[in-house]
Amino acid sequence: MFCSLSRLYRGLSRPTRRTTQLIWSSFSRSLVLSSQRRIPELSSFVARTNTCGELRSSHLGQEVTLCGWIQYRRQNIFLVLRDFHGLVQVIIPQDESAASVKKILCEAPMESVVQVSGTVISRPPGQENPKMPTGEIEIKVKTAKLLNSCKKLPFEIKDFVKKTEALRLRYRYLDLRGVQMQYNLRLRSQMVMKMREYLCNLHGFVDIETPTLFKRTPGGAKEFVIPSREPGKFYSLPQSPQQFKQLLMVGGLDRYFQVARCYRDEGSRPDRQPEFTQIDIEMSFVEQTGIQSLIEGLLQYSWPSDRDPVVVPFPSMTFAEALASYGTDKPDTRFGMKIVDISDMFRNTEVGFLQDALSKPQGTIKAICIPEGEEVLPIFLKTNNNWNSPVAKFIMEEQGLGLIRLLETQEEDVVLLTAGEHKKACSLLGKLRLECADLLEARGVVLRDPALFSFLWVVDFPLFFPKEENPEELETAHHPFTAPHPSDIHHLYTEPQKVRSQHYDLVLNGSEIGGGSIRIHDAELQHYILATVLKEDVKLLSHLLQALDYGAPPHGGIAIGLDRLMCLVTGAPSIRDVIAFPKSFQGHDLMSNAPDSIPPEELKPYHIQVSWPTDSETKRVH
Amino acid sequence: MFCSLSRLYRGLSRPTRRTTQLIWSSFSRSLVLSSQRRIPELSSFVARTNTCGELRSSHLGQEVTLCGWIQYRRQNIFLVLRDFHGLVQVIIPQDESAASVKKILCEAPMESVVQVSGTVISRPPGQENPKMPTGEIEIKVKTAKLLNSCKKLPFEIKDFVKKTEALRLRYRYLDLRGVQMQYNLRLRSQMVMKMREYLCNLHGFVDIETPTLFKRTPGGAKEFVIPSREPGKFYSLPQSPQQFKQLLMVGGLDRYFQVARCYRDEGSRPDRQPEFTQIDIEMSFVEQTGIQSLIEGLLQYSWPSDRDPVVVPFPSMTFAEALASYGTDKPDTRFGMKIVDISDMFRNTEVGFLQDALSKPQGTIKAICIPEGEEVLPIFLKTNNNWNSPVAKFIMEEQGLGLIRLLETQEEDVVLLTAGEHKKACSLLGKLRLECADLLEARGVVLRDPALFSFLWVVDFPLFFPKEENPEELETAHHPFTAPHPSDIHHLYTEPQKVRSQHYDLVLNGSEIGGGSIRIHDAELQHYILATVLKEDVKLLSHLLQALDYGAPPHGGIAIGLDRLMCLVTGAPSIRDVIAFPKSFQGHDLMSNAPDSIPPEELKPYHIQVSWPTDSETKRVH
Repeated sequence: MFCSLSRLYRGLSRPTRRTTQLIWSSFSRSLVLSSQRRIPELSSFVARTNTCGELRSSHLGQEVTLCGWIQYRRQNIFLVLRDFHGLVQVIIPQDESAASVKKILCEAPMESVVQVSGTVISRPPGQENPKMPTGEIEIKVKTAKLLNSCKKLPFEIKDFVKKTEALRLRYRYLDLRGVQMQYNLRLRSQMVMKMREYLCNLHGFVDIETPTLFKRTPGGAKEFVIPSREPGKFYSLPQSPQQFKQLLMVGGLDRYFQVARCYRDEGSRPDRQPEFTQIDIEMSFVEQTGIQSLIEGLLQYSWPSDRDPVVVPFPSMTFAEALASYGTDKPDTRFGMKIVDISDMFRNTEVGFLQDALSKPQGTIKAICIPEGEEVLPIFLKTNNNWNSPVAKFIMEEQGLGLIRLLETQEEDVVLLTAGEHKKACSLLGKLRLECADLLEARGVVLRDPALFSFLWVVDFPLFFPKEENPEELETAHHPFTAPHPSDIHHLYTEPQKVRSQHYDLVLNGSEIGGGSIRIHDAELQHYILATVLKEDVKLLSHLLQALDYGAPPHGGIAIGLDRLMCLVTGAPSIRDVIAFPKSFQGHDLMSNAPDSIPPEELKPYHIQVSWPTDSETKRVH
Repeated sequence: MFCSLSRLYRGLSRPTRRTTQLIWSSFSRSLVLSSQRRIPELSSFVARTNTCGELRSSHLGQEVTLCGWIQYRRQNIFLVLRDFHGLVQVIIPQDESAASVKKILCEAPMESVVQVSGTVISRPPGQENPKMPTGEIEIKVKTAKLLNSCKKLPFEIKDFVKKTEALRLRYRYLDLRGVQMQYNLRLRSQMVMKMREYLCNLHGFVDIETPTLFKRTPGGAKEFVIPSREPGKFYSLPQSPQQFKQLLMVGGLDRYFQVARCYRDEGSRPDRQPEFTQIDIEMSFVEQTGIQSLIEGLLQYSWPSDRDPVVVPFPSMTFAEALASYGTDKPDTRFGMKIVDISDMFRNTEVGFLQDALSKPQGTIKAICIPEGEEVLPIFLKTNNNWNSPVAKFIMEEQGLGLIRLLETQEEDVVLLTAGEHKKACSLLGKLRLECADLLEARGVVLRDPALFSFLWVVDFPLFFPKEENPEELETAHHPFTAPHPSDIHHLYTEPQKVRSQHYDLVLNGSEIGGGSIRIHDAELQHYILATVLKEDVKLLSHLLQALDYGAPPHGGIAIGLDRLMCLVTGAPSIRDVIAFPKSFQGHDLMSNAPDSIPPEELKPYHIQVSWPTDSETKRVH
């Protein structure tokens, strides 16, 4: 029996990726995130005296009333009761006088909800379960009440039982009973609470709710529209409270934050949700370093206490350096394999495609060295400095030695080389770098320590990028309210493409988890950038331009993507595992079947009708 | 000069209704709501050393850097700088060497943003301003920087300057600079933070975000629709997270709360907003008294420390009693003037309309006595027990004396009498009661102490009401998930109109600020009520019915209307004064002009088109 129970218990706490050393015990520990905080009363106001998970030897002899779900029953003697806090073993009474109690507890199907009252007793010697936090005790039941019965389940409520994501989402209310989902949602709540304490109680930020029924912003192609009762007039669900937070600074609120619901209609994207949450922050009279220190402190303060503490300040890297060394603006700095420029070594090469690449503007030759890459990749550098490559014969000995020196190549390493335009070459190697890391890790090489959280600021982004479809025109690299870098402002009126911005991204383990900027607070500058550089219709933003003219303070801010951050902190495979009721890839709520059809008469008050696609259009869609 | 300054200061802090003993000083006190809490650092991370409002004699001699708006300037010598925290007097240097500083500070228009650095010095003896928290000191400026200039304003940033609400909303970012709006938004942030501490840290609630892109609920005529990219399929913005919070209980989350954004499309309503916020709570294994104690504790804990403490438990009144005594389900219990049933006294009356009323089912005669009503109302009871009324001559002496006894009528009081069906008679007198209270207060009679917060639970509502348009059919009094009262459950299958519910409303000073219920956790009962009693299409709620069948725990909850609560706490005349960016009566954002037109091509991805009203329809609308 106890063997099975401990197997069950191990099953419940079976690790899915890294988080899941996290079992009930560590979970209950983490309920108390800070020593100064009172332990919450988990049984106040309700019909229980204790939670299932909290009982220990110190409770021996106490009369308790517990409420929970029947997790397990064996031989009609032992029953394991579960609540959000843990498991406890209950002894079903066998004597005649308790026949009705026995009947209730033996006949209730698994996952039925019961209330039991009884005494906390110690387990018989030798039957303790040291792996179970409540493993020293059990409950000698006196009374029992069936609170609700459970029909046959579509899947068992055990984390180790594999189920498709579609099934999990359809029965989300059952999926939520699992240990991992309980842990993820509770940790999210606790971290957000700590962030609020840091912002509100320690640094005087004001939590201000901004509207979500707003006006479409210029270029807001990804904004959901909401018809109003006025014909042809629509609200829009904003992608972020950007305008409002700036207007709050103009309004003298000084320090704003909000755990803000945002909306982005991107159609189907695997790891995006049509609605998502960001920790949205704005401050007046601040510079880039101020925001960075604030955020470093915020993460340090709110970080789960059972992880390695966050070390601050975070390292910082320019956009140019990130691109050159990692081929991306969100470098995963947990491992090396940096991109190296080897152009100089090949200035006099006779290899055609290398010559060709170097002769073009921005032309370069780049390489990365993959340690122990031989295990997984076509071999490039063989022992004795022999090169195994289609271009090996063109690489002269001194170039080969130079490569080894520059890339610090060891035997069995693999070198990947690419030649071409700087940005493209770097991007390509950046992607290969991550692919190779995945391949190596699949082979058991430990490149990225799962306990390591590697934060990085990426700074000095360009203010504008050339438009892909028309490189003569510029578009904003982030959003049009981003302030130019003070050292580059002189370029703005002559060579705007050279202007760096005061934008900063926060990267964690190769994922962008936040971004922000110092904003433009000068109406004239804002107007110039919108109208002259970006050629936007300034009328749509006239309220903001006007606001800047009425004594707008210098200000800046940042937004942290909460879903993605929690995904990384919990080690969840998808953001859907840190959201209570997520949408599917296709933006569907599989439980309630949203979005759904609406009778035409219910659309009438909104003065809209459905434009049903013609047959040919339908075919194109499908 | 100091006389003007103090006048200015009085202007800034001029009371609008009761809140506004709240001036800067009490405001900065209330920043620290609890003694255990650290005083927030208001100048961390930014380009100032102190806030304008915090400087006192204890700062004398300190070199400070301040950032703020120019509130006032006099004789090019004195300048009053304002930030969110208060006002401080700055001395503009007059010596030649500081000409550039003088130029900046003297030339910047009012409401320009400046940064000044200087020394805190004491004011010359006799020039202190005891009404100003910083009135003992002033700043001897050494350097100054114009951070942003301000154009001519549409109105002065002074609370005593009257402006229309339309103007305030159009320039909301300027309106927010006023003392009252700053106070309202900051108090809101602080109270919500305290509520979170109570729920999350003290009682183990989990803050869980639920989706706002959902499916239309049955009877959801007031739900905004959001077209999706699938032809004919729509999301809906929910009126509350009701279904989700119940599903979270099925999911074993045990204690949920959320400061939830909710949406209701009601067209134009003066004191409603299309989006509003509720403190949304749900618990498992709880009964009505548990929720009530939780909420009493919540309000007590989060109540502003500069008000009289909240006394718990709150009194409770049945719906029947509230209707009979106050003619409403949200009695204002700050004053008497209760409704009295005087039917018995008139059983043998010869007055036709009274006879008539009493002969009908539920027929009654009711009255209220308005103390000192003579001052404002047509006189009813004259001295010497003479009645001044069209029906006076029909009132026999003994009836008159009986009235005086029952209603405890005094000389100069007014009695209002009505005869008719119980509910209608009570409602009418209930409305007159409030009207009379307004009239009396307009005449200077103090009926409702502005410092008094009178909480009241209203309980034992009917579960169903007869539909107005067809009294044979029943509709739910609150929502279809409300559990029947256990004592009445036997009536459900025979006389459902007699069943009381486990719904409870929280009333404050005559406003409903919250409501909740114990929910149905039995799938069969829920199905019976939906399908048989309410005749709803159960398919739309099949996911919820199914969830109840999989071991749903008993559960209940409540929602507190945050906007209305804050409106009462701050004494604001409208909920628009406790919301940063509210919509107008017509649901418009007057600042950005939302809702707005959208080009037809931007509607295409959503497969909708505008149904423009025909001319005749347009005429009907206007």
